[in-house]
Amino acid sequence: MKPIVGIVMGSDSDLQTMQAAADVCEEFGVEYEMRVVSAHRTPDEMAKYGKTATEKGIKVIIAGAGGAAHLPGMLAAYSPLPVIGVPVQTKTLNGIDSLYSIVQMPAGVPVATVAIGGGKNAGLLAIQILATSNTELLNKLIEYKKQIAKESVAKNDERFTQ
Amino acid sequence: MKPIVGIVMGSDSDLQTMQAAADVCEEFGVEYEMRVVSAHRTPDEMAKYGKTATEKGIKVIIAGAGGAAHLPGMLAAYSPLPVIGVPVQTKTLNGIDSLYSIVQMPAGVPVATVAIGGGKNAGLLAIQILATSNTELLNKLIEYKKQIAKESVAKNDERFTQ
Amino acid sequence: MKPIVGIVMGSDSDLQTMQAAADVCEEFGVEYEMRVVSAHRTPDEMAKYGKTATEKGIKVIIAGAGGAAHLPGMLAAYSPLPVIGVPVQTKTLNGIDSLYSIVQMPAGVPVATVAIGGGKNAGLLAIQILATSNTELLNKLIEYKKQIAKESVAKNDERFTQ
Amino acid sequence: MKPIVGIVMGSDSDLQTMQAAADVCEEFGVEYEMRVVSAHRTPDEMAKYGKTATEKGIKVIIAGAGGAAHLPGMLAAYSPLPVIGVPVQTKTLNGIDSLYSIVQMPAGVPVATVAIGGGKNAGLLAIQILATSNTELLNKLIEYKKQIAKESVAKNDERFTQ
Amino acid sequence: MKPIVGIVMGSDSDLQTMQAAADVCEEFGVEYEMRVVSAHRTPDEMAKYGKTATEKGIKVIIAGAGGAAHLPGMLAAYSPLPVIGVPVQTKTLNGIDSLYSIVQMPAGVPVATVAIGGGKNAGLLAIQILATSNTELLNKLIEYKKQIAKESVAKNDERFTQ
Amino acid sequence: MKPIVGIVMGSDSDLQTMQAAADVCEEFGVEYEMRVVSAHRTPDEMAKYGKTATEKGIKVIIAGAGGAAHLPGMLAAYSPLPVIGVPVQTKTLNGIDSLYSIVQMPAGVPVATVAIGGGKNAGLLAIQILATSNTELLNKLIEYKKQIAKESVAKNDERFTQ
Amino acid sequence: MKPIVGIVMGSDSDLQTMQAAADVCEEFGVEYEMRVVSAHRTPDEMAKYGKTATEKGIKVIIAGAGGAAHLPGMLAAYSPLPVIGVPVQTKTLNGIDSLYSIVQMPAGVPVATVAIGGGKNAGLLAIQILATSNTELLNKLIEYKKQIAKESVAKNDERFTQ
Amino acid sequence: MKPIVGIVMGSDSDLQTMQAAADVCEEFGVEYEMRVVSAHRTPDEMAKYGKTATEKGIKVIIAGAGGAAHLPGMLAAYSPLPVIGVPVQTKTLNGIDSLYSIVQMPAGVPVATVAIGGGKNAGLLAIQILATSNTELLNKLIEYKKQIAKESVAKNDERFTQ
Repeated sequence: MKPIVGIVMGSDSDLQTMQAAADVCEEFGVEYEMRVVSAHRTPDEMAKYGKTATEKGIKVIIAGAGGAAHLPGMLAAYSPLPVIGVPVQTKTLNGIDSLYSIVQMPAGVPVATVAIGGGKNAGLLAIQILATSNTELLNKLIEYKKQIAKESVAKNDERFTQ
Repeated sequence: MKPIVGIVMGSDSDLQTMQAAADVCEEFGVEYEMRVVSAHRTPDEMAKYGKTATEKGIKVIIAGAGGAAHLPGMLAAYSPLPVIGVPVQTKTLNGIDSLYSIVQMPAGVPVATVAIGGGKNAGLLAIQILATSNTELLNKLIEYKKQIAKESVAKNDERFTQ
Repeated sequence: MKPIVGIVMGSDSDLQTMQAAADVCEEFGVEYEMRVVSAHRTPDEMAKYGKTATEKGIKVIIAGAGGAAHLPGMLAAYSPLPVIGVPVQTKTLNGIDSLYSIVQMPAGVPVATVAIGGGKNAGLLAIQILATSNTELLNKLIEYKKQIAKESVAKNDERFTQ
Repeated sequence: MKPIVGIVMGSDSDLQTMQAAADVCEEFGVEYEMRVVSAHRTPDEMAKYGKTATEKGIKVIIAGAGGAAHLPGMLAAYSPLPVIGVPVQTKTLNGIDSLYSIVQMPAGVPVATVAIGGGKNAGLLAIQILATSNTELLNKLIEYKKQIAKESVAKNDERFTQ
Repeated sequence: MKPIVGIVMGSDSDLQTMQAAADVCEEFGVEYEMRVVSAHRTPDEMAKYGKTATEKGIKVIIAGAGGAAHLPGMLAAYSPLPVIGVPVQTKTLNGIDSLYSIVQMPAGVPVATVAIGGGKNAGLLAIQILATSNTELLNKLIEYKKQIAKESVAKNDERFTQ
Repeated sequence: MKPIVGIVMGSDSDLQTMQAAADVCEEFGVEYEMRVVSAHRTPDEMAKYGKTATEKGIKVIIAGAGGAAHLPGMLAAYSPLPVIGVPVQTKTLNGIDSLYSIVQMPAGVPVATVAIGGGKNAGLLAIQILATSNTELLNKLIEYKKQIAKESVAKNDERFTQ
Repeated sequence: MKPIVGIVMGSDSDLQTMQAAADVCEEFGVEYEMRVVSAHRTPDEMAKYGKTATEKGIKVIIAGAGGAAHLPGMLAAYSPLPVIGVPVQTKTLNGIDSLYSIVQMPAGVPVATVAIGGGKNAGLLAIQILATSNTELLNKLIEYKKQIAKESVAKNDERFTQ
Repeated sequence: MKPIVGIVMGSDSDLQTMQAAADVCEEFGVEYEMRVVSAHRTPDEMAKYGKTATEKGIKVIIAGAGGAAHLPGMLAAYSPLPVIGVPVQTKTLNGIDSLYSIVQMPAGVPVATVAIGGGKNAGLLAIQILATSNTELLNKLIEYKKQIAKESVAKNDERFTQ
């Protein structure tokens, strides 16, 4: 099957953060592809990725980058698809630079930004977006919410004698 | 027709920011509802809104709040729908408090965060999400992108003699 | 005896920070209970905790959370009891996100916020609150202040020859 | 009747912020006193205020200050009573300096910090503290919560036609 | 004559900031062109501008943008020319977002960043760059430095009686 | 001989930072004393230290503290002597909290603030202050400046072959 | 009489902030001079000022500057005298840039930094430094402290009926 | 051959950061010199370096410094050459202090600032500046851009099976 979620990152050093998004896709049985596409080193590849995503069948783009993180915003410039931005933690500014570079987009071109280092939530948000037209995915999400609730409650028995 | 986008805000003082999201829905012909639902003053109403949104036919929730902005994250806790968070600008911290309170969600419960004061982009992101299963909306988005490009280019003739 | 201080945390990873609050209760001979209650993963449990705290005999709630830390504020939304918020240190933003999410509450719903990582002070603040109607506790607090003063003065003999 | 809440501020320029705390005491029928006591200009008066508060019958101290805001922390050093700190907004740093100076107290001496400019919430927190041993006040707080919920819900009828 | 400095901005609202760069070019007798080119609204125009700048005879690009300011970095991605970035002041974050988005470029693709709102210095830096191979411009710069020194010294006679 | 520089710190955990100030006094042959005096744990000791410093013969006070760092400002409140404040680095906020708590003093009560962790410079500043009426110390400072210049220049021979 | 306090500023736009330092000198009867000396526009004048201050009879230098504020630190590099730095408030970063540029000096070259916009406290600190060898000034400072205490106490009668 | 790029740093502890700039010069075959020149410890050496750079044949200055980083700005004050500033990461403030001290220069005296720790990009920017009048260097830069693009694309084959 063709991928419907495109996971891209500015550098392969972002892979650790972005793998969590891929893992969520796996968990929910959603096809995805994963690519290094650098807005700064390979701007033409990036533009092409943004321009052709829709016709390739991609429904949601997840883009992670750090520092002056332009990848999510530029893909949002080139594509009408929803773009989820993941601010990757940086060595000097802890990812505040990544966060501001991704979230503060001008009116007209949104990026759906998640927490610094939030690869997993980027994956979940992509599932939520796909679930707006896919009841099976929606039910899996409802199940997922029950599961994390159960795990959270279980911590009490593990940790506290009562 | 029943609304498919739910626009909620913590206080009616957020209305100026959130109206822009409603205007986008109008512009794209998408039904929406608009409500003041305070996580802190009316937590039961808020919980009910989150729990019943899916069955009411809502597909995307847009939630705006300022300061210790808990509304978007709490709706995301209660609902499996994608929740778009709008950090409202604040008097003392300019909305950095709102931004951190909304974007830094823990793994498991994402909020799709837009720029501080980004009501318009919240509306556009909702349209993009709905467009993942609605070709008409997707075409409108492609048209919208062409339109803002045209307006941007036109600034050159207005401003610069060449 | 029934607990009169409720110590709750969003995740069991907050336990190290919150244990210090429990230790203070032990030291002052005040009954407490300790629970993992996640605003985001178990919102219904959280709402129930807030709503039933008073009738269960809880007098003060101590809530710790990190990142988009909604637990203290949401418990304050559900309960008329004083809620002490502990911003837990975070990996990316050092707890500034936790601090802003907890302290910047809107007018009408206060959270008594202590320092980032301030589990011990949260415990002491709970004792101070209980001591407003308990002379024995007040005397213990006066004694405690004398004790930490004595320890501070003693450092001079340990450290400096004079 | 003798005041049981002491509202102090570092400068009379803080009065606008702190009046809101006094107004809450009025509204809940709680006796209070209001004083300018500067940690930096009148340190002896400040020390005396802290040392004698308990014997004067004060149960809770509310202290507001801006910039290098030492008043709340110093009163907490001198008094075993719960001290509520109000970070007053400043011209250059918007009150972040006040917030850090008040909330980041060392282990052993807590200050219950509210939002920047949060005079009203300081008043409410004082009432919550007093209500831990006063059922009438607790009932008034429960009533107050119902009232602000009602007002929040009413905004929907005022603002949105449905 | 053909322009050798290209001054571009993401939006015509940046014109007030960027006009100062153009004024410097005028003052030093250097040909320039000025264009609105939005990385987010007209990414293809932007790419084209970056790719063709060298062949058009442009020697230095000055690019100003605010918020998630991607224009300077993207032009630097597309062009081998030196790109000077001007972080435009923003309403919510005062231009810290613009600054981080422009200055924190990854290794391999530099942007020569000036102060927030530093349109004038961007112009001067362009002149300095051109002066590395133009003795006339270098002499004008030396003269310019003498002139601002003279004006600075003159303030003493204007302001202080001695 | 009696000490003329008083070096005080809020906690003995600040000793590592403050020892550098003492070392400078040793190096310049200036008598000093070193004490742990906590504004929050031993406010009466602190007040006494501030009030009696002049009569004891102290000419300059150096005070270091971290977090909600009130010690330097409170000593400045109690004493007419120049007080040098050293913001001690903190675990959560890196010492920004210490810096703001020390430097942002209200008009009327200055604290001479040095860099975060700047114990050595605090010592040098004390020497500079004493040197305003001590030619021998002034000459030693001039010599010191020559020495650090020489060491800086020597790095070139050590590091770079030329 | 020859001035013993040198008040310098980077630009005459800093005069409003620095006049307060001059006013304090007037009030305490201390001779001062006031000059615009720009580290960036007139570096040779600045170097000369620093190098000759001691021989001219200056005892303390007060230097104010905004943004990348290099004046205080450079004067401290050139002169063995104590240099008091005043971070001038800036339009974009509120003076945080000025503060960091002034206070974060490397070991070996201290600047005695006061609050952002703290011209008055810079003046007072200069007086305190001079008073370390001038009993008359010390007595005036003690009197000054009494006076501001009296004014602070008097606010209570003005503001609060008791 | 005589160096045309001058790489200077405030302290030899900055060498690790600045070596990357030298490496780029090596790679592009551009002569450079490397010196420790401290604005604060050797201000006269620094002034001399700035004043004589042009006549020595230097075309571009790269200056790195940390904390209250005055070296780049002071060299820009003394020299008409383009000065590239490298904010060196610091222990307490991560280099935000360095960044603000370097980038926020007043109108009239620009510093071309690169990312915190951006030694490599400083080198590349120097090459770009020299390439404005050197076709060979320009061609090498175009080649360099192709090379980093190729390496970025190659990551996909290394990392992802497709």
